[in-house]
Amino acid sequence: MSGNTLGTLFCVTNFGESHGPAIGCVIDGCPPGMPLAEADIQADLDRRRPGTSRHVTQRNEPDRVEILSGVYEGQTTGTPIALLIRNTDQRSKDYHEITQSFRPGHADYSYWQKYGIRDPRGGGRSSARLTAPTVAAGAVAKKWLALRWGTHIRACMTQLGELPIPFEGWEHVPQNPFFAPVADVARYEEYMDALRKAGDSCGARIRVQATGVPVGLGEPIYDKLDADIAYAMMGLNAVKGVEIGAGFASVAQRGSTHGDALTPQGFRGNNAGGVLGGISTGQDIEVSLAIKPTSSILTPRESIDIHGHSTEVITKGRHDPCVGIRAAPIAEALLALVLIDHALRHRAQCGDVTPPLAPIPANAG
Amino acid sequence: MSGNTLGTLFCVTNFGESHGPAIGCVIDGCPPGMPLAEADIQADLDRRRPGTSRHVTQRNEPDRVEILSGVYEGQTTGTPIALLIRNTDQRSKDYHEITQSFRPGHADYSYWQKYGIRDPRGGGRSSARLTAPTVAAGAVAKKWLALRWGTHIRACMTQLGELPIPFEGWEHVPQNPFFAPVADVARYEEYMDALRKAGDSCGARIRVQATGVPVGLGEPIYDKLDADIAYAMMGLNAVKGVEIGAGFASVAQRGSTHGDALTPQGFRGNNAGGVLGGISTGQDIEVSLAIKPTSSILTPRESIDIHGHSTEVITKGRHDPCVGIRAAPIAEALLALVLIDHALRHRAQCGDVTPPLAPIPANAG
Amino acid sequence: MSGNTLGTLFCVTNFGESHGPAIGCVIDGCPPGMPLAEADIQADLDRRRPGTSRHVTQRNEPDRVEILSGVYEGQTTGTPIALLIRNTDQRSKDYHEITQSFRPGHADYSYWQKYGIRDPRGGGRSSARLTAPTVAAGAVAKKWLALRWGTHIRACMTQLGELPIPFEGWEHVPQNPFFAPVADVARYEEYMDALRKAGDSCGARIRVQATGVPVGLGEPIYDKLDADIAYAMMGLNAVKGVEIGAGFASVAQRGSTHGDALTPQGFRGNNAGGVLGGISTGQDIEVSLAIKPTSSILTPRESIDIHGHSTEVITKGRHDPCVGIRAAPIAEALLALVLIDHALRHRAQCGDVTPPLAPIPANAG
Amino acid sequence: MSGNTLGTLFCVTNFGESHGPAIGCVIDGCPPGMPLAEADIQADLDRRRPGTSRHVTQRNEPDRVEILSGVYEGQTTGTPIALLIRNTDQRSKDYHEITQSFRPGHADYSYWQKYGIRDPRGGGRSSARLTAPTVAAGAVAKKWLALRWGTHIRACMTQLGELPIPFEGWEHVPQNPFFAPVADVARYEEYMDALRKAGDSCGARIRVQATGVPVGLGEPIYDKLDADIAYAMMGLNAVKGVEIGAGFASVAQRGSTHGDALTPQGFRGNNAGGVLGGISTGQDIEVSLAIKPTSSILTPRESIDIHGHSTEVITKGRHDPCVGIRAAPIAEALLALVLIDHALRHRAQCGDVTPPLAPIPANAG
Repeated sequence: MSGNTLGTLFCVTNFGESHGPAIGCVIDGCPPGMPLAEADIQADLDRRRPGTSRHVTQRNEPDRVEILSGVYEGQTTGTPIALLIRNTDQRSKDYHEITQSFRPGHADYSYWQKYGIRDPRGGGRSSARLTAPTVAAGAVAKKWLALRWGTHIRACMTQLGELPIPFEGWEHVPQNPFFAPVADVARYEEYMDALRKAGDSCGARIRVQATGVPVGLGEPIYDKLDADIAYAMMGLNAVKGVEIGAGFASVAQRGSTHGDALTPQGFRGNNAGGVLGGISTGQDIEVSLAIKPTSSILTPRESIDIHGHSTEVITKGRHDPCVGIRAAPIAEALLALVLIDHALRHRAQCGDVTPPLAPIPANAG
Repeated sequence: MSGNTLGTLFCVTNFGESHGPAIGCVIDGCPPGMPLAEADIQADLDRRRPGTSRHVTQRNEPDRVEILSGVYEGQTTGTPIALLIRNTDQRSKDYHEITQSFRPGHADYSYWQKYGIRDPRGGGRSSARLTAPTVAAGAVAKKWLALRWGTHIRACMTQLGELPIPFEGWEHVPQNPFFAPVADVARYEEYMDALRKAGDSCGARIRVQATGVPVGLGEPIYDKLDADIAYAMMGLNAVKGVEIGAGFASVAQRGSTHGDALTPQGFRGNNAGGVLGGISTGQDIEVSLAIKPTSSILTPRESIDIHGHSTEVITKGRHDPCVGIRAAPIAEALLALVLIDHALRHRAQCGDVTPPLAPIPANAG
Repeated sequence: MSGNTLGTLFCVTNFGESHGPAIGCVIDGCPPGMPLAEADIQADLDRRRPGTSRHVTQRNEPDRVEILSGVYEGQTTGTPIALLIRNTDQRSKDYHEITQSFRPGHADYSYWQKYGIRDPRGGGRSSARLTAPTVAAGAVAKKWLALRWGTHIRACMTQLGELPIPFEGWEHVPQNPFFAPVADVARYEEYMDALRKAGDSCGARIRVQATGVPVGLGEPIYDKLDADIAYAMMGLNAVKGVEIGAGFASVAQRGSTHGDALTPQGFRGNNAGGVLGGISTGQDIEVSLAIKPTSSILTPRESIDIHGHSTEVITKGRHDPCVGIRAAPIAEALLALVLIDHALRHRAQCGDVTPPLAPIPANAG
Repeated sequence: MSGNTLGTLFCVTNFGESHGPAIGCVIDGCPPGMPLAEADIQADLDRRRPGTSRHVTQRNEPDRVEILSGVYEGQTTGTPIALLIRNTDQRSKDYHEITQSFRPGHADYSYWQKYGIRDPRGGGRSSARLTAPTVAAGAVAKKWLALRWGTHIRACMTQLGELPIPFEGWEHVPQNPFFAPVADVARYEEYMDALRKAGDSCGARIRVQATGVPVGLGEPIYDKLDADIAYAMMGLNAVKGVEIGAGFASVAQRGSTHGDALTPQGFRGNNAGGVLGGISTGQDIEVSLAIKPTSSILTPRESIDIHGHSTEVITKGRHDPCVGIRAAPIAEALLALVLIDHALRHRAQCGDVTPPLAPIPANAG
């Protein structure tokens, strides 16, 4: 209950600091009997890894995962799966300056006020590096969802700073460093190069989608599926907004157009984003995230020191000029973790049986 | 863990159906020794109550709350506070038709697929009527936050369908049925009248704000304060989007402008919306919600019946043409519940002591 | 998390005070589609009810239960089941004296120290009356266990004060006010009569048994089935000891005799009490409880007042001279609640499928 | 919620298998600002360590703990503390035989039935080796309890097989391999030597005590302090019974003698074992455990194989002939973990303030 565990039945407990000895997580509640190897997890970690293009932080971390428990002869046993990632490129230089003042837009001030102490090295616990264990756990969830139900999850960038990114096709996403669904990313490369030269940063918008989602996942009133998705996504570093389906556009819609019509062939349209009354409909889950610009920039900023006096802060070191660039695999992992958790909750209360009179599960619009 | 409890230390367990005998909740974890009477709770229930203007449902429910436990001689005892609201105007007529087909945009289909059975009367469990117990619990939370820390919470409507509502001042909000922060609401009255005549519905955007928020509330990594706010708000019926601070506008911001500068007099600006690294900064908490148009409309809609055959659905009965109109007090309650829960969690781990070198808590920009 | 909820998936949240307006509970997580009526619950409440013989408190409470939610047309819907029992015979006379000093063996002192305030009427929250909602919830759990798996739960008294009660047969238990498994209870009637005349009280030992228990319920390391049984039973008012299977007798056993041999026809013996490694084996679950003598006695006791000065306390009013007499149905309810919770947890993680090579489930010895 | 986490606010998530790469735990919720080093934890691990006398398993494990996170410059930061212990002496020989049949008294059968797969190496997840992470976490809890409130926890053996061990003094406990509170343990050495020669095993009874316990810890109705103690202790491998205070002896007591009188100087006697109404009184917490004889014995046993056919099983390898011998430090750790969890819960709801009129906290009798 201290905030470092995600999920109620498929529980991921995350630990570590950016420049401590190691980061990792413990997954408790994974169903037994699923084939699992480190390679299954490594693939997604590599998609999130720093240092893979000039547009992300140049910290060189292999992010090699070790399975410490919960797998026997290549299969999950139903007991906790502990995943360990050693930190290797910490560069623990002098952090004295950073401990004396607060970087605007960072967690320095709020952590220090909360705990009265903070690990300042590379952002400590508040570093985006701590999304790596989430990605690792998400890879396990993804595998189960795919094997069990054919549920697949993918994400792409739909806006980079002021530049909207048109949707050309999912097949382009793995082909460029932006997770952009377009064939030609030259324009975004130039944009990022200019930004980096200016010592500034920008935000991004990410789209996350799940297909093949079972009908009936989600709980009424509070732990709705969309509520838990919003929780998971808003908890991703730098996220300032979350939409499901039509999102903020639904404000100006009419009821006569918003509600997705049902037909014997499935739903028409997907304003719902795959969720009605907090419960999945079988339509694709559609989520959109707003990611703020990185707060670690070279431009000097007005701030205060720990005594409350005025000071100026410049953030040096290796940073992502747009944290949104590496956000796609993390958002995928979070959606997978929410879905598997609700799948297990559903199975607990309702079993796996589909009601006898169910119409053919819906096709997304 | 079955989705009808909100909070981890200040826990609200919600029960009831729209047309069952009663609705209510049990609050577990309220600190002892706080003065509490039914009148404290009734005030907020009356703000949410149906039938108070021609723009909301005409169902006539007094929503009279009874405290069943947890209060002795006018003070909370630290034991569970059970709150009961009897349903009085159920009009349980023939619901046969509604049980045979699915209303587009409603929870009919997803509940039926999940549980294999559903209480169709007035939407059953998925009715917005179930926000009343949340509002009642929120009133208890609000009182503690105000007494203990001077934390105050308020909400207003900032957009009605296509019409943005300018912010003229909080003092106008209680003076009109829209919770609109403007002196003259004639325009919105006309808009709603036209919509009602057309048998259609519209969405709304709601702003929620907390002032006087203690610094240090929120947990790292997953149970961030903003994550739990997003969870609570997205769980409110019909919400499709949630923003904190600059929200989706932050995508196009630069890091040099987004990060709120710190000064000895407090923060400059509030792009953060009061949260950095998932932990409160002492700035005002600023949240914005997108509420979809009501799905209960008189316009006939294409749908299917429970056998999967094509049919047409018209929703009769008494409904809100814009559920957003009554959303302000509910959103306030949810924010209060999230804040008190994190306040208790903070107290558990860190005690109430402010770090000795803390600068003067920030003023919101 | 504030201690008034039992279970993680089949969650029972208990509320009320002995002499407040009402007591009750909310069950969240009950599987949908189970036939349920108030009569199903009333039967067990009547077994626990006060005033049914001269050996228990003479308070006259019909303990009439009302289902407020979660049931539609005689079937559970999967949404919270709220159960309400109005208090009718409160006799709220002068409680001033009781508020000024602490009754030895009672929760007066500890509640007052914890909360700084307490509802003294009839013991307030610490009264054994609050086991009624547990019994009501247990009745729901029992029904599901019986329908789903043929799991049945029963309890009897095995010792009354110094008098051991031999086991003659389960059929005698419903035939006497002691839940004693013997045909002739004259000896126990006399014992209680003498005790009551002496203004004193005595303890009891209770045996609880579940038959037809599925194999595989329970979680490793901490939430073991026996750990959760011990938790539930020790939480029953006045319980001071819990045994599973051979219990304390196992201390003097040898490994060569303790471990229950497995045969193709089932286990030989049941020293395990139905649990190995925290997981059910299919043997009968066997639990034994020690219940202390009631602390509410007419004999004057040495104590202190709230100012810390010496005083003498006599407990007047209506009390059970042996709380153990009514403990059997409560212990049954608690075992049922633990079993259903673990059954749902098992279903969540492992599904309902029995491993293909499983030997025939064991017969208890 | 999958059973490998202990605690609600001071949460310990345990992972690992006896012969896997590593075991360990993640502590979430530790208060910040507490001095902590590996040496603090190692001391208790060394007390539990195998191979320290001829009466325990000869497996040679240094059980060297590594702190992976949550500590910065020698102080806890309030973020998760991950503790890692590498397994070094696994001897992974042929486990084929053990996978084909079930050892009586072991978790083989129940794990296999639950999960359909099990890690058989050294008992896998069900091995008592998994108490090491609990001991490590308990050491952190003990330190906080001692520093904050002067709460101290200790345990000793009070019975070995048929031999009761008289209480001569706590000072003897660290001086012998049995944790026996007596000066001369020759008799117990001989007893164990004979048992070992016979290829058999025996049980033990352990007493656990906490002194300096704050008044007011524990929650009403379900999460009572004694309920959570019973849960924790019954979850310890091989425990079959738990008593608080007078325990099973209270069955034959009268109310006039059982209830501990209060005086201005404190309580007279401690039949309560430090808990009334589920809440601590300030008396010493007194707990007694029954530990069954080890099931791993050299004597051949009747059993079945995984096809349900009769077979005979002999357990070879290195085993404790009395697991109770090493149980004292584990029981201490569990009591510490329960107390710190309830201390944080109490602080959350009630703050640290003692009610103004509180009499001097009680001395245990």
